[in-house]
Amino acid sequence: MDFKEIVMKRYASKEFDGKKIPQEKVDELLELIRYSASSFNLQTWKVKVIEDQETKDKLLAASMNQPQITTCSHLLVFCADANIMSNIKKIEKMMKDAGVPEAGYKGYIDMMIGFESSMNDAKRVEYAKEQVFIALGNALNGAASLGFDSCPMGGFNPVEFKKILELPENLHPAVLCPIGYGADEPKPKMRFSKEDVFF
Amino acid sequence: MDFKEIVMKRYASKEFDGKKIPQEKVDELLELIRYSASSFNLQTWKVKVIEDQETKDKLLAASMNQPQITTCSHLLVFCADANIMSNIKKIEKMMKDAGVPEAGYKGYIDMMIGFESSMNDAKRVEYAKEQVFIALGNALNGAASLGFDSCPMGGFNPVEFKKILELPENLHPAVLCPIGYGADEPKPKMRFSKEDVFF
Repeated sequence: MDFKEIVMKRYASKEFDGKKIPQEKVDELLELIRYSASSFNLQTWKVKVIEDQETKDKLLAASMNQPQITTCSHLLVFCADANIMSNIKKIEKMMKDAGVPEAGYKGYIDMMIGFESSMNDAKRVEYAKEQVFIALGNALNGAASLGFDSCPMGGFNPVEFKKILELPENLHPAVLCPIGYGADEPKPKMRFSKEDVFF
Repeated sequence: MDFKEIVMKRYASKEFDGKKIPQEKVDELLELIRYSASSFNLQTWKVKVIEDQETKDKLLAASMNQPQITTCSHLLVFCADANIMSNIKKIEKMMKDAGVPEAGYKGYIDMMIGFESSMNDAKRVEYAKEQVFIALGNALNGAASLGFDSCPMGGFNPVEFKKILELPENLHPAVLCPIGYGADEPKPKMRFSKEDVFF
């Protein structure tokens, strides 16, 4: 399927049929997410992958009782990772381990450290979240390309999610992406005109 | 090209060769951007498409003198549109014009109005920006699928951009995406491990 077909086929499924997506397909989707672009390649995301029904049921009330949560095959909880310094250190180690000489990465690492220290805590979360939305895009298009459906969902209570999923302090649930096989039909796409969007 | 190939082929080009992308290819990319997913389908983005060299040259100093700005074919300035209420009204009008009976959209419009009024101005910008990053993802993957290159860029001065491009108050430059033909070679992709990203 070419990319245009993927983009036009993708839709936000409002209810799934409960069937499980084969594990190898889920794994393929996770690879597409993992290879998303991000600012400085900092990959400021962690994704909780929820398959068991009990956890999904527990999250339903914190998701405005939307049926996608309990009818999906897997629920992906995209979290922004605000511990940016830890990611900078991981990148530095990966480059060192890959045999890149220090002169080849020091400027890049120093630039990231300077950037990181220019932000306050709220800004770090905001920055990390922006990258999460690039990865979300790969999840949505990726699902369509692999033959199943998805639904980007912002309507949930991140404080409750953090509590129920016992997330560490640095992880901030940013957006949900249940995946599965849609039990509904896509509606025709409605978009603002080209003249309205581009100038 | 299948989606996995697109994701693996895409890279952040650090310099372009200056050649122009044919207009019909640029138009295809803009359609891929326009059909991106967004929260409530609110499409809180506007994209300034810059082709003329004079404007690109003017923006160079406000982009940390990065050569992508002046060597690209087209520079896309992705702006977050914080006038969310205006977009809600446009969606309402589109539904009405499409012949949807009022009962079919009133609940949806009212929910969006309630959500919009729950945000302050800073939150509106943050929310609009998050959607912009989904559209950015379609631009990056879209460029690779159409046979040219791109570079997501956060290193620029949005205040200066707003002044130089004479943007209205509600538009906030969020991220740049120069497109063109890369004059550099992609480096091997480096990503955190699967075990590190998914939990």
